[in-house]
Formats: sequence, C-alpha cells, structure tokens
Amino acid sequence: MHIMADPHAVQLDALKRRARAESIGFVPTMGFLHSGHRSLMDLVRPRCDHLVVSIYVNPLQFCPGEDLDEYPRDPEGDAELCSGAGVDLLFMPETLYEPGHASTVSVSGLTDGLCGARRPGHFDGVTTVVSRLFGLVQPTLAVFGEKDYQQLAVIRRMTRDLALPVEIIGAPLVRDTDGLALSSRNKYLSADQRIQAQSLSQTLFAIQAAVAAGNRDVRALLALGRTSLNVDRIDYLEIVDPDSLQPMDRVDRPARALVAAFVGQTRLIDNVALCPA
Amino acid sequence: MHIMADPHAVQLDALKRRARAESIGFVPTMGFLHSGHRSLMDLVRPRCDHLVVSIYVNPLQFCPGEDLDEYPRDPEGDAELCSGAGVDLLFMPETLYEPGHASTVSVSGLTDGLCGARRPGHFDGVTTVVSRLFGLVQPTLAVFGEKDYQQLAVIRRMTRDLALPVEIIGAPLVRDTDGLALSSRNKYLSADQRIQAQSLSQTLFAIQAAVAAGNRDVRALLALGRTSLNVDRIDYLEIVDPDSLQPMDRVDRPARALVAAFVGQTRLIDNVALCPA
Repeated sequence: MHIMADPHAVQLDALKRRARAESIGFVPTMGFLHSGHRSLMDLVRPRCDHLVVSIYVNPLQFCPGEDLDEYPRDPEGDAELCSGAGVDLLFMPETLYEPGHASTVSVSGLTDGLCGARRPGHFDGVTTVVSRLFGLVQPTLAVFGEKDYQQLAVIRRMTRDLALPVEIIGAPLVRDTDGLALSSRNKYLSADQRIQAQSLSQTLFAIQAAVAAGNRDVRALLALGRTSLNVDRIDYLEIVDPDSLQPMDRVDRPARALVAAFVGQTRLIDNVALCPA
Repeated sequence: MHIMADPHAVQLDALKRRARAESIGFVPTMGFLHSGHRSLMDLVRPRCDHLVVSIYVNPLQFCPGEDLDEYPRDPEGDAELCSGAGVDLLFMPETLYEPGHASTVSVSGLTDGLCGARRPGHFDGVTTVVSRLFGLVQPTLAVFGEKDYQQLAVIRRMTRDLALPVEIIGAPLVRDTDGLALSSRNKYLSADQRIQAQSLSQTLFAIQAAVAAGNRDVRALLALGRTSLNVDRIDYLEIVDPDSLQPMDRVDRPARALVAAFVGQTRLIDNVALCPA
C-alpha cells in the first residue's frame, strides 16, 4: 500500500491509470476507521483495479461550535486497517484546498431538511470536498455509507447534475452487536451514554416493526418513536420519501425513518428503511 | 464531423477516448459563431487528438430581463464554421440539465465586482454549466476567450479549486477592422449604434496609450476614459489587478482595463491589458 499526501501527485497517478483504462474505486473518509469503513472497502475492492481511500477531516463541513478540533484521529490504526483491506493507495493530505480556495458546490432542496436544517453549510462543505476529491482521485466508482443517508442522496444528486463520470454506491449501515450504528463519534460516549445511545436504533426498529404490523400513520409512528428515545435532546425524528427526502404523511410506499439526537455533547444519527408489506 | 445532441452519448464517447489516452480539446460556446470563436478552435486544434465544440444557450447564466429568448441562433452556419475548423464533434444538446437539476457551482470573491455585480447569478450559471460540460466532454484542455476576461478568471479559479484535470487556455480577444470586439450580440447593433460601440475599444486604447505615456493615476485614467465613451449607459469602466480583479489606485504593475456599456438595449463588453513600461 502506498501512502501519499500530495494532492497533485495523487491526481497525476490517477490520470495515468485512467489513460490505460484502469478502474479506480474510492472510499472517502475522515479517518478513525472502524468496521463500517472496512465494509465500504470490502464492497469496492472486488469491483476495481485500484482502490483508493482518503482520510481528511474536512473543515468546510463542520459548523461553528462543532467538534472539528476534537475529531478523533488515529493515522497508524487507519493505515493498518486500510492495508488489511487491500487498499492500494491511502491518500492522507495535510491540507486539501488550494491557497485562496473560493469555489463551492451546493445542492438545493435535498439539503433543506434533516441535518441540512440543523447544520448550516454542512452539505456545501461535503459536496465541495467530494467534488475536489473526485477531481484528484478520478474514481470510476465511489462508495458512501447509508449511515449518512442524506449525504448519500445529496452526493448522488451532485454527481448526476454535474455529470461526474463516477458510479455512486450506497453501502448498508453497519451496527455494533448492541444495535448502535458504528460511528467514529461513538468514542465520545461513556458506558452510561452508550446505553442511552442504543435507544436510537431501538426506536427505529420499533417504528419498523409497527410499519410491518400495519401502522401507516406517520404522526402516530413518530409519537411512538419519541417516547422510546432516551436521549438528552432530539434533533429530529422524521419519516421521509427515500429519494426526495420530503416528509410523508402515510407509509403507504417505501420510506426512510431517520433520527438525530444528542447524548451528552455527542450528536448521533441513525436511519432504517420502512417497507410496508 | 459528428453532430450529437445526447449528453450521455457524448460522455460515453469521451470516456472511451480518455481510456485510450486520447487528448480532448474543448471550446464551449453559445453558438452564432464568428471568427472570434474560430480563433479559439484554431488555437486548440493542433494541441489535441479530438476537438469538441459545444453550442448551448445556457439559461442559468441569463438574468431576468436579459436577452435569453432573443439570443441569436444559426445552427447551420455554426455547423459549417465548425466543420471548416476541423472540429471532430459538435455537441448541440437541446436540453443540457438533468430533470430536477439542483446543483450549483459558485466562486466567491472574483465574481463580486465588474459583471458579477451587475448580473446577479450570472457567474453561478457559467461555472455550473462549465462544470457539467467538463463532466460530459472530459476535456484535457479547454479554451475561453479573453473577451470575457472575468469569466476566464472565474473558470480558472473553479478548475483549480475543484481539481478538474483540464488545462484552461485563455485566447486573445479578436476585433473587427473598426476595433469593435467580436461578439454575437453585435448583430443587434444598427449602423449608427455600431459607430457608438466603437468608442468602447477607442476608450480602452486611449487609456492604454496614456499608461504607455507614463500616466499611472487610475482616477485620471478613468476620467479620461469616461469622456471618450459615446454610449447610452456606462455599466462600468474599471482598472483592476489582472489576477485578483481588485481595483487598483495606480498602474505601477500590469493591470487590466475593462468596460461594459449599453448601446441602445445592447450590452457590450471589452478589455485590454495595461503594461506600464
């Protein structure tokens, strides 16, 4: 496995590969890798000639007051995980942007609700960094976890709108044995908080079960969910159309239930598919 | 010369060429081609394996009240000019954007002044369409005229910021024998208006001569320019840094003089380099 820090060197290497028809798989990350990330790599590894993972804690996607400075880091552990996953190139830039960077890529509509409403500028930061990473890495396919469900929808939209020749793959969310969705931020949780945090997935599973049992009324489903959430603050709990992310009144077709909540200072997100029988 | 309308077919063809290491030159236009456009093609033709010209009157870069609906069109004449210039592929999409298009590429700073201040949203439209065209056409090099000097600076910035692997070439402005900068919009001018329009280049040449003669004071240079402009409305007349586009006080280093003015209902632009000896 090669480790590179220089964006231009990464691009030069990528363009050479593309000019000889190699396929490039790409997993962009913010590091502190866990088995959720590993599952993304495992998904792409058999589908590409050359597998690139990037690690960059992107300041543009953090809002004021968020955990940019404390975001957990473990470059040695990350390199070991990547090496074990058969990654060819680990791209770890110190700085990613050009001096005087002035460009923003934004997606309207899909970013209005959910995390977009609570984290102003967050998705502009995501789409801007992903655009630049795609420019540097020149992937033919890239994978994003369904854990960040809204992010995946936004990136799909951007990729289509800007005609980026990258196949976007959504990868299933990975949970710990207690149901908690894997996240680098779980590291912040104390033992007691971890028990509270489990109520996110438990709530979503309860909603899923209610839908399977025939409950179609979103208002009732969300009320049920709110009573079962054992958190310090609910950021949102919503049931939306899986493509447009618009709120639904009745689950009479496939839908997505999403939650964001604070346990202590830690903001956690989770989501599940709702499939009426 | 092939003529294609389908964006996806154009991209498919481009990706195949890139995968066998062909270079692709690209001249994006809004059609109604004249010898200014031809000069862009002549500049790129010897430098690429495959030359693509696009013709698309991009609604996103027109502001309310501008001449979108009346923008002159001549598809047959355009095809003839392209064919004569050795163009390989003429890309003439009927619609360019995806249904539900929601993505915008924007550049801050460089777009604040000059045309950016007078045409809100114009440069967002330009950078968004150029991004998408780059995605479809997959050029290795693309050429833009210095006639749209601010546009060229904005596109250079976007290309660098988003790490698009495209070499951007700026091509010298082309003038008619009477000094008028070539523009598809010159077609709107009556014989009398055309004489008025000549005062744009005459003004810029007068400023250029004054700088060459030792005048360094921007205020004085602009006052001189304003008296020589014979137009119905001056939109702006400015002397700016050629890279940052920030206004300058003294021309003690290379600078750019730019003018935008209305002759009748027609908005014309022009610019020249200022080089203190």
